[in-house]
Amino acid sequence: MQLIDGKATADKIKQEIAAEVAEIVKNGGKRPHLAAVLVGHDGGSETYVAAKVKACEVCGFKSTLIRYESDVTEAQLLAKIDELNHDEDIDGFIVQLPLPKHIDEQKVIEAIDYRKDVDGFHPLNVGRMSIGLPCFVSATPAGIIELLKRYNVETSGKNCVVIGRSNIVGKPVATLMMQKGLDATVTVCHSRTKNLKEICRQADIIIAALGKPEFLTADMVKDGVVIVDVGTTRVPSTETKSGFRLKGDVKFDEVAPKCSYITPVPGGVGPMTICSLMKNTLLAGKGLLKNC
Amino acid sequence: MQLIDGKATADKIKQEIAAEVAEIVKNGGKRPHLAAVLVGHDGGSETYVAAKVKACEVCGFKSTLIRYESDVTEAQLLAKIDELNHDEDIDGFIVQLPLPKHIDEQKVIEAIDYRKDVDGFHPLNVGRMSIGLPCFVSATPAGIIELLKRYNVETSGKNCVVIGRSNIVGKPVATLMMQKGLDATVTVCHSRTKNLKEICRQADIIIAALGKPEFLTADMVKDGVVIVDVGTTRVPSTETKSGFRLKGDVKFDEVAPKCSYITPVPGGVGPMTICSLMKNTLLAGKGLLKNC
Repeated sequence: MQLIDGKATADKIKQEIAAEVAEIVKNGGKRPHLAAVLVGHDGGSETYVAAKVKACEVCGFKSTLIRYESDVTEAQLLAKIDELNHDEDIDGFIVQLPLPKHIDEQKVIEAIDYRKDVDGFHPLNVGRMSIGLPCFVSATPAGIIELLKRYNVETSGKNCVVIGRSNIVGKPVATLMMQKGLDATVTVCHSRTKNLKEICRQADIIIAALGKPEFLTADMVKDGVVIVDVGTTRVPSTETKSGFRLKGDVKFDEVAPKCSYITPVPGGVGPMTICSLMKNTLLAGKGLLKNC
Repeated sequence: MQLIDGKATADKIKQEIAAEVAEIVKNGGKRPHLAAVLVGHDGGSETYVAAKVKACEVCGFKSTLIRYESDVTEAQLLAKIDELNHDEDIDGFIVQLPLPKHIDEQKVIEAIDYRKDVDGFHPLNVGRMSIGLPCFVSATPAGIIELLKRYNVETSGKNCVVIGRSNIVGKPVATLMMQKGLDATVTVCHSRTKNLKEICRQADIIIAALGKPEFLTADMVKDGVVIVDVGTTRVPSTETKSGFRLKGDVKFDEVAPKCSYITPVPGGVGPMTICSLMKNTLLAGKGLLKNC
């Protein structure tokens, strides 16, 4: 069993990005510039945005943090998005989700110019990805694919089971896995799937993204399986200072011995997501969708 | 075994649409107006466009056919698309594919205002469909789903195998089948799939869309399976006036006896595609994406 080290991989990729940015700047180019809009003071969101700003530093990007109190109106937020869309110095920007309930998240996502949508949530980026056109792929699916590539996991003709059909992980990662180049035979399972155990036991690769701690157990997988655990549920813990710890969707201790490769939680997919955002920002700086 | 009669279903739906249009007109509303752009004189394209114009008549739509010789420039075509995008009388329009090689099809598709893109090929409609937002779903996938619904084929929790990963059938129909409401467990197979026979034998529903005549044989399916045959390959024939006949992807004679439901070729999915285009045009006339 080989552990897929998301942390080390993400660090390595960030160094590669930093080297490329240094080269761009050396040749008279502009540092990529990411803006992040943060509404309110949700603990999780604060942590994520801080980590994104820090990753920008590591990569040599310029970053701008725009804060609003949680009583910001939808109109104010949309006005700021319009401003960022037209700000030529900003290459890409994100609006950290979730937003307060009085703001329509989908409206906000669709207001972002898709050419600056480095989160890849805009329907135009989702559609372009499905068709196989240049696009910003959302961070978690992109991070999963990158991990499999870096560890030389063979995907062509392999049976890949995706558990979960969310718009931000399950559906896009399934789409990516079946594209030409990756060529996996992909099955998408979800809450209505009747014979999940049987389906999982036939899988060469399982991507667990359903958000149920320790859902996938040893009896559900075959020997030699590759497992990507996307789950990050906070469960109470007396062993940590914060009072909680992250649990994946896989019962790691019993499943890991059966795997050829497995991603741990934490330290697997998690660190890769911010890294994918950095990659998208670099691509935005290089004008990926400028003429699209 | 029950034959799924696409022709009769399509005729019924067109009558329903005609009744709705009559009601709209009676209440002072406007007839939906579809425009079709046809470039050159490809036999297949001529036939399809003529059938679409005729279907418009049946549904009580206004239709406009715009013809170009095959030496039309890309710029001329894009100018016409821009004109149609801004023509308030046109609710929806299509550009019949394929286009001559000197014209970039993807560029043409993306030039169409997605709010008038009744073919549902624009990446924004593809993305909106994947996310589950209101959109124009492309004709063949929409027609397949409509057939299954009209015949009360249970999809929830069923194992659905899609053979083929094309942008116009395989991928979108897979996305639709896994959405909430249909809730199938979906597997997408393709040319790189290694154990296709084994996978198909576990399927409750098979949607064959690979374009290989009589590819799916009796030994590849289980008893009671539901089969949707999307294949329409022209094969030479001495029995028809035209000198060819349409063959599906399923070896019908030997597979049909094992099925609970099966669509024939011709007369299955084929007639439903134009019917889906009519449905999209009706929705466009009613302003489906006007405020999106």
